[in-house]
Formats: sequence, C-alpha cells, structure tokens
Amino acid sequence: MKLVIIGGVAGGASAAARARRLSEDAEIVLFERGSDPSFANCGLPYYIGGEIRERNKLLVAPIELLVNRLALDVRVRTEVIAIDRAAKTITARNLATGEEYQEAYDKLILSPGARPFKPPIPGIELPGVHTLRDLSDADRLQELARKSRRAVILGGGFIGLEMAENLVGLGIETTLIELADQIMPPLDREITMPIQRELTSRGIELKLSDSITEITSGETGLRVKLKSGLELPTDLVLVSVGVRPENQLAEQAGLPLGKRGGIQVNEHMQTSDPDIYAVGDAVETYDFMTLQPTQVPLAGPANRQGRLAADHIFGREARYRGTQGTAIVGLFGKTAAMTGLSEKAAQRLGLEHKCAYVHPNHHAGYYPGAETMTLKMLYSPQDGRILGAQGVGGAGVDKRIDVIATAIQAGLTVFDLEEIELCYAPQFGSAKDPVNMLGFVASGELRGDHPQVRVDQLESSTWSEAQVLDVRTPREFAAGHIPHALNISVDELRQRLTELPRDKPIVTYCQVGMRGYLATRILLQHGFSVVNLSGGYTTWRMFHPA
Amino acid sequence: MKLVIIGGVAGGASAAARARRLSEDAEIVLFERGSDPSFANCGLPYYIGGEIRERNKLLVAPIELLVNRLALDVRVRTEVIAIDRAAKTITARNLATGEEYQEAYDKLILSPGARPFKPPIPGIELPGVHTLRDLSDADRLQELARKSRRAVILGGGFIGLEMAENLVGLGIETTLIELADQIMPPLDREITMPIQRELTSRGIELKLSDSITEITSGETGLRVKLKSGLELPTDLVLVSVGVRPENQLAEQAGLPLGKRGGIQVNEHMQTSDPDIYAVGDAVETYDFMTLQPTQVPLAGPANRQGRLAADHIFGREARYRGTQGTAIVGLFGKTAAMTGLSEKAAQRLGLEHKCAYVHPNHHAGYYPGAETMTLKMLYSPQDGRILGAQGVGGAGVDKRIDVIATAIQAGLTVFDLEEIELCYAPQFGSAKDPVNMLGFVASGELRGDHPQVRVDQLESSTWSEAQVLDVRTPREFAAGHIPHALNISVDELRQRLTELPRDKPIVTYCQVGMRGYLATRILLQHGFSVVNLSGGYTTWRMFHPA
Repeated sequence: MKLVIIGGVAGGASAAARARRLSEDAEIVLFERGSDPSFANCGLPYYIGGEIRERNKLLVAPIELLVNRLALDVRVRTEVIAIDRAAKTITARNLATGEEYQEAYDKLILSPGARPFKPPIPGIELPGVHTLRDLSDADRLQELARKSRRAVILGGGFIGLEMAENLVGLGIETTLIELADQIMPPLDREITMPIQRELTSRGIELKLSDSITEITSGETGLRVKLKSGLELPTDLVLVSVGVRPENQLAEQAGLPLGKRGGIQVNEHMQTSDPDIYAVGDAVETYDFMTLQPTQVPLAGPANRQGRLAADHIFGREARYRGTQGTAIVGLFGKTAAMTGLSEKAAQRLGLEHKCAYVHPNHHAGYYPGAETMTLKMLYSPQDGRILGAQGVGGAGVDKRIDVIATAIQAGLTVFDLEEIELCYAPQFGSAKDPVNMLGFVASGELRGDHPQVRVDQLESSTWSEAQVLDVRTPREFAAGHIPHALNISVDELRQRLTELPRDKPIVTYCQVGMRGYLATRILLQHGFSVVNLSGGYTTWRMFHPA
Repeated sequence: MKLVIIGGVAGGASAAARARRLSEDAEIVLFERGSDPSFANCGLPYYIGGEIRERNKLLVAPIELLVNRLALDVRVRTEVIAIDRAAKTITARNLATGEEYQEAYDKLILSPGARPFKPPIPGIELPGVHTLRDLSDADRLQELARKSRRAVILGGGFIGLEMAENLVGLGIETTLIELADQIMPPLDREITMPIQRELTSRGIELKLSDSITEITSGETGLRVKLKSGLELPTDLVLVSVGVRPENQLAEQAGLPLGKRGGIQVNEHMQTSDPDIYAVGDAVETYDFMTLQPTQVPLAGPANRQGRLAADHIFGREARYRGTQGTAIVGLFGKTAAMTGLSEKAAQRLGLEHKCAYVHPNHHAGYYPGAETMTLKMLYSPQDGRILGAQGVGGAGVDKRIDVIATAIQAGLTVFDLEEIELCYAPQFGSAKDPVNMLGFVASGELRGDHPQVRVDQLESSTWSEAQVLDVRTPREFAAGHIPHALNISVDELRQRLTELPRDKPIVTYCQVGMRGYLATRILLQHGFSVVNLSGGYTTWRMFHPA
C-alpha cells in the first residue's frame, strides 16, 4: 500500500499518524507546501501577540518526529500541482529547486486546507495588507506589528477578533470592520453583544455594517477608505473575512465540488474517486443535525476526518457523523461559544424551533468570584430534541457548551437536561447547574407550565396590545425597565391582582426569568392570559443595548 | 390540598417551591428544626475558613422570601416528633416554647436530611469536639477556629478535606486521620494520590489507616490518642466520618428502611405509604447505572428528588432516574471529581469492566498555562458502554467529568466519545479533547488495535515473566523507570527489534501512553506478543508514589 497525503496540517497529519499506526508496511508520503507540517494554526494570533513566546511550541509534530517516529516520507516546501487519476500518480514540484516529478499512489488523501478569502478591493495586494494562514504569515505579521502603531482588521469572525485582542495587547490602536451588523456572524446577534461591549471597553474601534472600498499607500503608511465614507490611516491591514477551500487540484482532477467549492465526500471521506479521500477545511461534509451539506473550517472535525479516512483506507468501517459546529473564542477573559444550530441557521433552514434563555452564575452565587453567563438553547417544539446552544460570559461557558454538545451528539431532549447530574461544589457549579436550568425552562414551556415569549416576538403585532408587567422590586424597576411596563413586585402580586387587566394578555418579566416564571404561574392559576419573557430584562437588554 | 414538608434545606425547599409553582391553592407548611431553612450547606467549610465572609450569603432562600414570594407557612425551630399515618397528622414541637401541636396533611414530604455519624469514641462528647451539619455548627466552629492553633480532623472524605483546607488557610496546624488507606474513599486510591500529595505539601499532617481511640481534655486543651499509638495535643477536633439518615420519624411511623437506614422510596419518591414521600439525604434511592439501592448524600439529587416529589403529588408523571453519584471537590486549586461507578464499586458488584487512563493537558500545550490532569474511565468490555469516570488535576477536570456524566446519562459508549465534538480554542481545550482521548484509548482496546494492561494487573503472576519495555528517551528513563525495564526509544524501535524477546510477552510503556501505543502497534505488526501499559509511567507512579 502506498498512501500519498497532500497537506500536512490537522487533517493530513492526523491521517498520516493513524495510517502508520494501522500499518507498518504502508509507504506513506506526506507533501506539504509550507515549511512546517502539523503546526498549531489556532495558536497563530497568540504567537503574533506574544502570548505564545516560543515559535517552536507551535510545531506540534516537527518533521523529525514525523520521520523518526512515524516513518513518514515527509516532503516540505513541495507543492502537488496535478493528479492523474487514470495513472494514479500526482505531479509534485519542489518549491526550492523548481524540480517537478511524479509520485504514484494506491490511495490519495487530499488535505489542502483553505486559503483566506481576499475580496477584490483596490489596494488589497499592497505591502502591509496581510492575511493569516500559516506560520510564515504569522512571522511577517509579528514583525510588522512590532513596528505598527495603528491596525485595521477587516472581518469580525473568530480570527479577526483574536487578532484584535492580540494587537491591542501590543498597544496598537485597532479598528475592526465587519460587513454584518454584528461580530461573530455564526452566532445569533444578541449573544454577541456582551463580547462587542467588552471589545469596545478595551479600546477596539468597531465599525459594523461597513466595509473597505479602497486601500491606498502613502508616505505615512496605508489609508483605508470605508463604505461609510470614513478614512483611516493605518500601518497594518489584516484581511480576515473567511476562507475558501483549496479545491484547484480536486477540480482539475474532475472531482465534484459543492456549491461553495468544498470537495464533495461521502461518509468515509471518499471523493467520487474511491481511491481519493479528502479531509479538513477543503471538504464539504454534512451538518450533524440537519444532514445538509456544510463547510466548517474547524480543527476538531479536520482531525477526526483525517483519522476516519485512514481507518477506511485500512479496512475499518468508519463513518463520519457530520459536523456539529462546536466552536469557541476567548477574548479578554470573556468567552463566546456555540454548538449545533444557531437560531439564524434554523430560520434559514425553515426549521421549526423554540428557544430558552438563562443568565446563571458559573458557580454558586454564595461563593466568591461567581461570574455570570448567558446561555441560549434551541430545541424542537415537537419532541424537545436539543438543536443547538450558544453561550457568552466569563468562566464556565465552555463547560456548559461542551455538556450540551455531548447531549446533542446523544440525541438528548430538554427533558433529559432536567435530570442530568453534574458536578457541584461551590467553586464549580450549582446544585441546579445552568444546564439543568435550561432544561427546566425549556421543559416548562413544552409542558405548558411555563408559557414564554421571546424578546424579538414581543415587538411583533401579536403582542403589541399586551400589558407588560415588571415583577422586580421598585428599585430594580427604577434603574431601567421595558417601556410601558407596569411594576408590581412578585412578592406583592397575589395581593394586587385587581390591578391587572383580564381583557388582554400579560407579559411578565424580571431580571433573568425566575421571578417572572413564578409570576406567570401565579397569574395563570388565577385565570389570566400570561406569558413570561424568556430570560427577562437581561435578555431584553441584549436586544436593546443602552 | 394540604402539603406538609418536614425539613427545609435542599430537598424540602425544592419541593416547597415546586409545589407552589404547581398550585396556588395548596396549603404548604414547611417545618424546619433549625433556625434557617434553605441554607447552603456546601458552603459551610468556606464560611468557617473566611472565604465566604458574609453569613447572609449562605441563606439561599431566607424565611421572608419563602413566606412572601412562595406563600409558604414556614415554621422554624420546630421539630416534628411523630407521624400518625392513620389520622394523617403529624405532631410538632416548638423548640422555643416546648409547645406541642398536631397538624393535618393530605400529603407529607419527609426531607429530614442526615446527621453526622459520631463513632463511639471515649471523649467524643467533650467540648471542643465538633461535627458540621448546619449553620449553628458552623458558627461554633468559626469561633473556635479563631482561637485555635491546632486541629485534628477525623475523616478524609470531601467535607473533612474541605475543612482541612480552610483550617490551614487560617494558619491552624491540621492533622487529618482517616481509617482507610486513602483519602476520599469513594474514589479509587490511585486517583487520590495527587490530592494527597497536595495536602501534604500544604502542611496537612495525614494519618491514613489510623483512627482515634480516645479523646481527653486537660488544662492545655484536648488530647487525641490514635490507634497507631500516637498522641496529639489539639484545640479542636472535627469528626467528619460520614452521615446517617434521619430516619427516626419514618421508622416510628412504620415506613420501611433500607439496610443502611435510608427511607425506602419508589421512583416517584413515594414511601410505602402513598401519601408520604421522602427525599434527600435521608432516603435510599437506586444507582443510575446498576439499579442497586444506594444512599448518596448530595445536593443535586436532593434538589431533583424534591422537585419530583412535588411533581408527582400534583399529578405529573415524574420518575427519578437514579443517582449517578457525580461529585467534586476543590482543594488548594486542585480538583478531584467522579461520576458513575468507581473501579472499587464495580469490583464490589462483581461487574465486568475495563478501564482507560489518560494524562492530558487541560488545554492546548502550546498555549501558556496548560495544567495536567488524570482521567480514568470504566467501561463495559461487552459493548463499550461507559460505566464511570474519575478525574484529578488542575483546571478543566470538572468540565470533562460533566461531559462524561452527560454521556453516561445518555447511555453513550466509548466509541461515541471518539466522535463527540467539543469546544476547541487554545485557552479551552485541544483539537482532540481529553474526552476524545479517553474514547480513543478505550475503543482501541475493544477493537483489539491497542491491547492494554493496567498497572495493578502488571504485578499479577500473568505478567511476572513479561519483558517491560520503556520506549521513552534515555533521559526520561534515567530520571525514573519501572524496575527491570529495558529502554529503547520508540524512535529507534524499528531498528532494534532484534533486541526484543519473541518467547514472552512484552509490556510497553512511555510517559502517558501515547508513544507506548505506537510502540505496541509497531511490535504487534512485527509479530510480537505485546500490550501497552495504560496511562504509562504517570499511572505507574500513582500506584507507586516516590
């Protein structure tokens, strides 16, 4: 068996290592265009920012290790420029010498990755305008950053934001421009608001719903013109507006591509040619929840796919379950994370869904240092199956999203979340964990015990006539409330029922939803038509930032 | 409906709150023997140690809240002394006035909790010898601690250890005595070793396999005599050797008790009397995994049970799924946690099991601040179903145990753990999360790709003839290795196969198991009889501390 792997980062390196473990006999040739196979690309922003000091640390599996330990034939700085499927050979070009040669394969794994997209902006090829893909990009950016006073980042996705954090950490005045009306476009907008606020408070200039129309170069550096008319002088531009699959080789070889350019594969990561597999950021796989085609450039799935491709090549019945899209970003000590479907994805798919918000502490409130978080969970109104979740806040967000990611993988429902038994000691959680709370809120809605309305629904015509009822204390009410709300503290509610209308629906709310829930129960049992505002005033504030 | 609840802490308070949400009409009377219903008992050690400064913070739901918000009839400092099942009344005694009276009920929920066990040691009733159950105990201990220079703690369970940490934090010389040969008896011994080391390094004197035979009082304070012969002068003794269910009321009422004294209940938390429910630390429930009877005094299950009892009383089809035993303790910044079955529990039950060890970083090793942990997972050799897991280390242990707790709840297998997609950014995890790694190790064993032996098996006669092979570098080998091991680095292994015996089994190992796995694969494919030592030298060291 001769296995040729094109691309030596996450997917390719995983495939190579797994292949060697499955076969000592196989000849395994690994081609890598860059100088370093298997580098930690998720660490690049932190290397640029100086958080990761040693460049060596980013070399997860140095060449010597791949050669000595895994007995791989590693060819770096070598680009594969053609595949001859009939002859089962590839053509490689040594980038140092220009030499071209052919290499035969029995099985071929494509793991070429994805390249940063460069929008057709005049000036985008100027010196000082960068993208970030590999270690040599990072080296260049690190050097440039050291000399820069001002930076402009185009693109408010995870990498753009991580770069913004790191540049600010270097004392660079940083402006971030994003075409959408929110940062982190995969997340629902309201969930991004706490991070947006954090970025602003750290001095990052955010320009949402804006874009770059032109970049020019002058004596004092670069000038960036925005669609909004603004002009920004800068020393450095980072373009980080997503990636495109490296599909040229596959396309030239006649392998089918998806609509967005990803190499199409089956559940064994096989392309239409059974001797050619493809893995990682270059492929179109399918969504774990919806089974719809998807392209998600994440390291975890790339690693799994590489492993699976090797498994299948060596006769294992391995099947890819689809990509769940679990992702996380840490910025200035805050965290945003998601798994499964966002609400906007569900809406795009026309998928019926409900959603629950909670705003719990990450551990028992009575123990010092509790940080708050917001969790939003989507679930099926039919059977309560969990469709997705998002979290934002401080410590412990990653844990709750991981727990829900596991629940989704297992096909659990919101009713199961009521019952799961998680770690509780005051430093780690609560006797009713935030995940249990999500289960309570969603199950209550589905059982009809706890009818809820969402902030975005509140503004629809259905609810325009409703009486909004703030059941917090007068003091909380005075500090800020939903317009036109009536204030009756939940503790006085039973005595003041006569003040409430019986001829129109009531929407109760409190700070996070708990007291509003009790108020809803009280009013329901007294014959009122009532719903609770999901997540209370805290959620409302995420939709209506001050 | 008149609902009477006896005991106002976790289970009772949860039942009362849930009952009120389900019924505005119900008359709900809550009896509490102490002064404070619904206090945070898991916070008491931290209140004594001063970590939690405000006593008020421990009052999770003060009386006024229960009265005003939940419209409960709360009667504190009132002990229920008898149940008349035929008449459906209870007899209550006001502890302040001595007044006794009867109260009728339609439904009764017993949530009396458990009392600290006091072993029959001469002197155990002396002033200065304490147990810790409620806020008044905590108040007494807090005051005494302030005046104490030396303390002796009997019992190395979670509470004893938390108290040790807090007393040491107050500058008190602390000795901890435990009858077993390990601290934290619910955990497997090797998993407790890193915590044991931490305690010792913080100056706590540990006396394992020892006990107190007598406590005497003299002019200079207390004297504690140990079975080992040692005598310790001390100012304070805390007895923390487990709890006993408060079952007197139930027993007098003729309600069946389990072998260990817990009130027996069905899956609706009903006792043999359908009008009497029991919840919390006083009940015998069943284990989620084995369906065997169990008594687990934990706050999470108590809360769930309280909620379920109320649900069932008000006509919901709620069923308790059993207690999974998820528990955690944080000590000096280290964490130990478990969920499901420990290995000793599996052995006690005669349950066939396999186990996997991993020693990963809590986040990407290339990002600064990575802390290591040890995870041990038990699984079924038949179908790979996860039976239990334990973790010990620094940050991120709680997350992994919570993920596995969720997987257990869902009935997932080790093969599922290979596939779950968890959060990865360098600050939070790795592209192959520690939980995925557990999946790889266990699945490899079950598929036959990665035969393993455990440290404790290594010492059995089956393996006494085996050639132990250390595949780490000579430098690592020189720093410490398993006796009689041969050292051939994995990177040289293919060239040095002739040095290895073909007439007896080989046990490979490395530092944590990864290189040993590759070595096993290499040797297997070259026809050797070989197994990998699960978790490598790091696991071996946990069984053979320096």
